[in-house]
Amino acid sequence: MPTTPTSNKSQSLSKSEKRTAEIYRVAANLIHEKGFEATSMNDIAKRLKLTKAGLYYYIHGKRDLLYSIIKFGMQKLEEQVIIPGMEIEDPEERLKQIIEKHTLLILELGGSISILTDEVQSLTPPHRRIIVAMKRDYMDFVRETLRQLRAQKKLNQLNINIASMNIFAIIVGVARWHNPKKGWSKSRVAREITKFATAAVLR
Amino acid sequence: MPTTPTSNKSQSLSKSEKRTAEIYRVAANLIHEKGFEATSMNDIAKRLKLTKAGLYYYIHGKRDLLYSIIKFGMQKLEEQVIIPGMEIEDPEERLKQIIEKHTLLILELGGSISILTDEVQSLTPPHRRIIVAMKRDYMDFVRETLRQLRAQKKLNQLNINIASMNIFAIIVGVARWHNPKKGWSKSRVAREITKFATAAVLR
Repeated sequence: MPTTPTSNKSQSLSKSEKRTAEIYRVAANLIHEKGFEATSMNDIAKRLKLTKAGLYYYIHGKRDLLYSIIKFGMQKLEEQVIIPGMEIEDPEERLKQIIEKHTLLILELGGSISILTDEVQSLTPPHRRIIVAMKRDYMDFVRETLRQLRAQKKLNQLNINIASMNIFAIIVGVARWHNPKKGWSKSRVAREITKFATAAVLR
Repeated sequence: MPTTPTSNKSQSLSKSEKRTAEIYRVAANLIHEKGFEATSMNDIAKRLKLTKAGLYYYIHGKRDLLYSIIKFGMQKLEEQVIIPGMEIEDPEERLKQIIEKHTLLILELGGSISILTDEVQSLTPPHRRIIVAMKRDYMDFVRETLRQLRAQKKLNQLNINIASMNIFAIIVGVARWHNPKKGWSKSRVAREITKFATAAVLR
């Protein structure tokens, strides 16, 4: 059943999710600034205005925190982008929704959480496997959507694997260049990103 | 005077430039793996199979090395992308050449040097200003090219600032996803990236 999410400009997080997101965002910003190895639990506790004991009440260590942050981002992606996307039958509409909603999610969570998702090498091997598998599933979903567009003869002549990487690079690129304090609104950026990426792939 | 660089698939570095590039690439890989703050001069010397004294003969410290790596990358960009691009009068051809040559440069130097260019916050303020100005000049050059395309009515309806960020994200994205050990040849990737980005912006 196709949804009508273009009107759904602000994807809503619950209050407790917003609090969790805020903790992860603050920690993610710090890790992004200093680098994961150079950031101590003490630094994180200080930035969050928690005692170190208070922080350990919530998380069991730095690697655990990193995993929680990345998993949180991936779960939001699943809830707000992948699951709604799977309900859209038309691949063209699905592609547009994936791009727009993923961009909005990054803008809403703050870029650092998205950037940190690259930090898989700092996870324990079992955690790394889980995250890598979630990422692969997402990329498969995008590639499958492009394949369906090709079957409908709507796709430009391009390599589907490279094209999916490009789409992904544009979306996560927003995490690096967007300055929430100035410039365009989140919905404007999401629309521009969607227009750009779909113009690249659609005939 | 338009050049004919599509035939120029392998941009050539001199032998001593290749040696410098190799040292910077190795150091950049290590910094990328461990994070800048967590990487010591000792780690870098060990990886390069130099004594610490030997390393200090070439560079004066870690922050100095970071600056040298980033500046090296920006200078290559200037030599191989910006200066040749400035000689191309037709903005459509210029845009294609910028994208293709910048992608090839990243593939040739190895992704870590390009990724490290984001690490400006770890530079001293005077060095940071130099690098930020070089980056701004490059983005201005791309934006100016898009503006000329708009004047020629060849540009899709899109925001030029966001479109330049997207083009940049696609090109530097290659540094993160391309695996030199498998997959497509450098020239194939560069062509696909160019096709994708120009389809996005050109009518």
